[in-house]
Amino acid sequence: MVEPLNIALAGLGTVGTGVVRLIETNAELIARRAGRPIRIAAVSARDRTKDRGFDLSRYTWEDDPSVLASREDVDVVVELVGGSDGPALALARKAIAGGKGLVTANKAMIAHHGLELAAAAEEAGVPLKFEAAVAGGIPVIKGLSEGAAANAIERVYGILNGTCNYILSTMEDTGRDFADVLQDAQRLGYAEADPTFDIEGIDAAHKLAILAAIAFGARLRFDAVETMGVSPVKAADIEQARALGYVIRLIGMAEIDRSNGVTGLFQRVRPHLVPFGHPLAHVDGATNAVVAEGNFMGRLLFQGAGAGDGPTASAVVADIIDIARGEKRAAFSMPAGELEAIEPAPTGHRLSRSYIRFTVHDRPGVLAEITAAMRDAGVSIESLIQKGSEEEGGEVIIAAVTHEGPESAVTEAMRILDGSDSLVAPPLVMQIIAD
Amino acid sequence: MVEPLNIALAGLGTVGTGVVRLIETNAELIARRAGRPIRIAAVSARDRTKDRGFDLSRYTWEDDPSVLASREDVDVVVELVGGSDGPALALARKAIAGGKGLVTANKAMIAHHGLELAAAAEEAGVPLKFEAAVAGGIPVIKGLSEGAAANAIERVYGILNGTCNYILSTMEDTGRDFADVLQDAQRLGYAEADPTFDIEGIDAAHKLAILAAIAFGARLRFDAVETMGVSPVKAADIEQARALGYVIRLIGMAEIDRSNGVTGLFQRVRPHLVPFGHPLAHVDGATNAVVAEGNFMGRLLFQGAGAGDGPTASAVVADIIDIARGEKRAAFSMPAGELEAIEPAPTGHRLSRSYIRFTVHDRPGVLAEITAAMRDAGVSIESLIQKGSEEEGGEVIIAAVTHEGPESAVTEAMRILDGSDSLVAPPLVMQIIAD
Repeated sequence: MVEPLNIALAGLGTVGTGVVRLIETNAELIARRAGRPIRIAAVSARDRTKDRGFDLSRYTWEDDPSVLASREDVDVVVELVGGSDGPALALARKAIAGGKGLVTANKAMIAHHGLELAAAAEEAGVPLKFEAAVAGGIPVIKGLSEGAAANAIERVYGILNGTCNYILSTMEDTGRDFADVLQDAQRLGYAEADPTFDIEGIDAAHKLAILAAIAFGARLRFDAVETMGVSPVKAADIEQARALGYVIRLIGMAEIDRSNGVTGLFQRVRPHLVPFGHPLAHVDGATNAVVAEGNFMGRLLFQGAGAGDGPTASAVVADIIDIARGEKRAAFSMPAGELEAIEPAPTGHRLSRSYIRFTVHDRPGVLAEITAAMRDAGVSIESLIQKGSEEEGGEVIIAAVTHEGPESAVTEAMRILDGSDSLVAPPLVMQIIAD
Repeated sequence: MVEPLNIALAGLGTVGTGVVRLIETNAELIARRAGRPIRIAAVSARDRTKDRGFDLSRYTWEDDPSVLASREDVDVVVELVGGSDGPALALARKAIAGGKGLVTANKAMIAHHGLELAAAAEEAGVPLKFEAAVAGGIPVIKGLSEGAAANAIERVYGILNGTCNYILSTMEDTGRDFADVLQDAQRLGYAEADPTFDIEGIDAAHKLAILAAIAFGARLRFDAVETMGVSPVKAADIEQARALGYVIRLIGMAEIDRSNGVTGLFQRVRPHLVPFGHPLAHVDGATNAVVAEGNFMGRLLFQGAGAGDGPTASAVVADIIDIARGEKRAAFSMPAGELEAIEPAPTGHRLSRSYIRFTVHDRPGVLAEITAAMRDAGVSIESLIQKGSEEEGGEVIIAAVTHEGPESAVTEAMRILDGSDSLVAPPLVMQIIAD
């Protein structure tokens, strides 16, 4: 009989419970595929008495998760505690220093401390794996760092937050407004009680920074992700976008920018307009999808469940199986010391088509003021819709789509209009994804 | 300096040339990711003088490809000769027996001899890899055997042949008929001069059999794939399907069937109707896409370029990088000896919704005859369209969609109508994919 791979689980929330359930349900199949059984040597969580739907007494319990990192009978620590620092980071460091492999679903911790942990893991000669940290059940880290390994990746982008995608696609289907749909999402469990990390784009930014590091062989720069969330998107924007042939999605996008003779790392999370003909336009509900473009493979798309206990557990256990099989790939596809320090790219010279929505007072001269500002800033307008107000002197929506041009011109037009008393609220600018 | 991984290339057609170009272009990046350089130690092809766009003199030439398998300075043989048997198979066997790793893009050889080669590779302790054999540049073999490794896979299906998808989606866009579009596809290089393997579904069946073996841990049964090609699909079918909310795609589908208390392997390649809301409905042109459904991960979709020198070379070199990294996963995700022998599943009891197109003489009583046959066979009709003929007594098209029911009932209805002189041609039955 071959030796099992012994794992210790820290954290028995939704994902941790899913991992136990998966390992119990698919044990025999996993042993055949991994070449050896996966054995849960010990577990730790905050509450020992909570009913999690499985018999906790089958597993050795530790009150203190950090003890898992020093148990003799543990090969791999699975960190599912969460949080970028605190107990999760302490456990991760201790596990690696103690010669254990580390598997985690913790995107915040990897986005902030991934480089340090990867360097420590290489030093210690242990695996560090975090497939579940990005896009839940979709093996996109494996896809980029192994499947696409032969390619220079030019761009990676996608729908990285299921909560935002659920909200936007529900707004689209129902015509309802953001706040209203968010409440529903919270009630249905698609959004947290405090939804800030999701709806402000921070969760997507964590994932994007991880993907960018792997795709471009660049040192992680979470601090340099330009981030905007979905709360400014109105039902009217979705309606206008649809009339123009687009849907609105929160897109994380990263590129290597060589356009100015300097290599820069471009990373942005923002609502974008996606043309109906693009595969991302058909990604609805809590689904995630990632597109990677390489110099030989062309465009590759990965799509699936971005969250939930089953899909996330599937990714966690895939990492464990890789370790059981003896796979030794570096955490970020190449050794941490070889990742290049690439400065954030300036964005002003980026050529984009943009959608700009103005909420204005319904009175003479407003349209002339806006179009003059666009002209003076050098923004060329491709189409413009003014939606009539129902009452004299009320608010109206003006939605403009620009021709392709430097983003700095749009910024300049917004600067000219800043503080204008024609505007009821600040304009919303969203870039348009090319087909 | 670390030792390079030395490879030998047999075959310098489109893909082989692409592999050389990729390794030359991305050499430095590949070395960083693989942890060591990839060195082309020797090459062999039919014609030494042909201009392939690179300097052949840089590489050691062998007239006889089988010599590559015994060169001391070769770690991995890359077989890109093609053909299920003959020189390709001889080279593969010799390379493995000689203790070399084998990488191949040869779907026909793997579909026919994959089990034998996998067993030999395990015996010899060398890697056997064939990512490029299925869906070109899409890392779907890796996705299934590693990314989805924690799951019991319930179903795997997709668009596996770019030629057929190009033809069907062009018919859809232009309203033109099959033969006409095929000619264009041949002129543009999307179809071979002899397109039989592609348009009759054999190429897709090769790929499906490989995917099924990996997904289900089953012994390869290419002989048991029920195969039908796209040539019977008419422009009128595409038009009717669209009116009903579907597109037509050649789908390869494999499932483990446990419905009758016996475990059976279901494998089918056929044109299907795909509802507009399904991600496969938006896969156009020569693109490939594969869906896998697992008991924890849910539905996963992989999409990308299914053919072409760049994407296929990307997959070949990804395999080479895996080997350079020391990855040791079994060729079919588990040892060949552990793959289960699963008998083909009978299909009569399968519950499907079907589209049935009849081409009939435009005369009284025909519709009554068809609907009576359906009733007598127990087929419940959900909708039926009769498209009026332009001239009295001409041919008309009747398109029926059935409610969900056993496929045997549809077969029985076809049997009742067989030989009826109301029918101008045999009816065409296509199953409908669920949303």
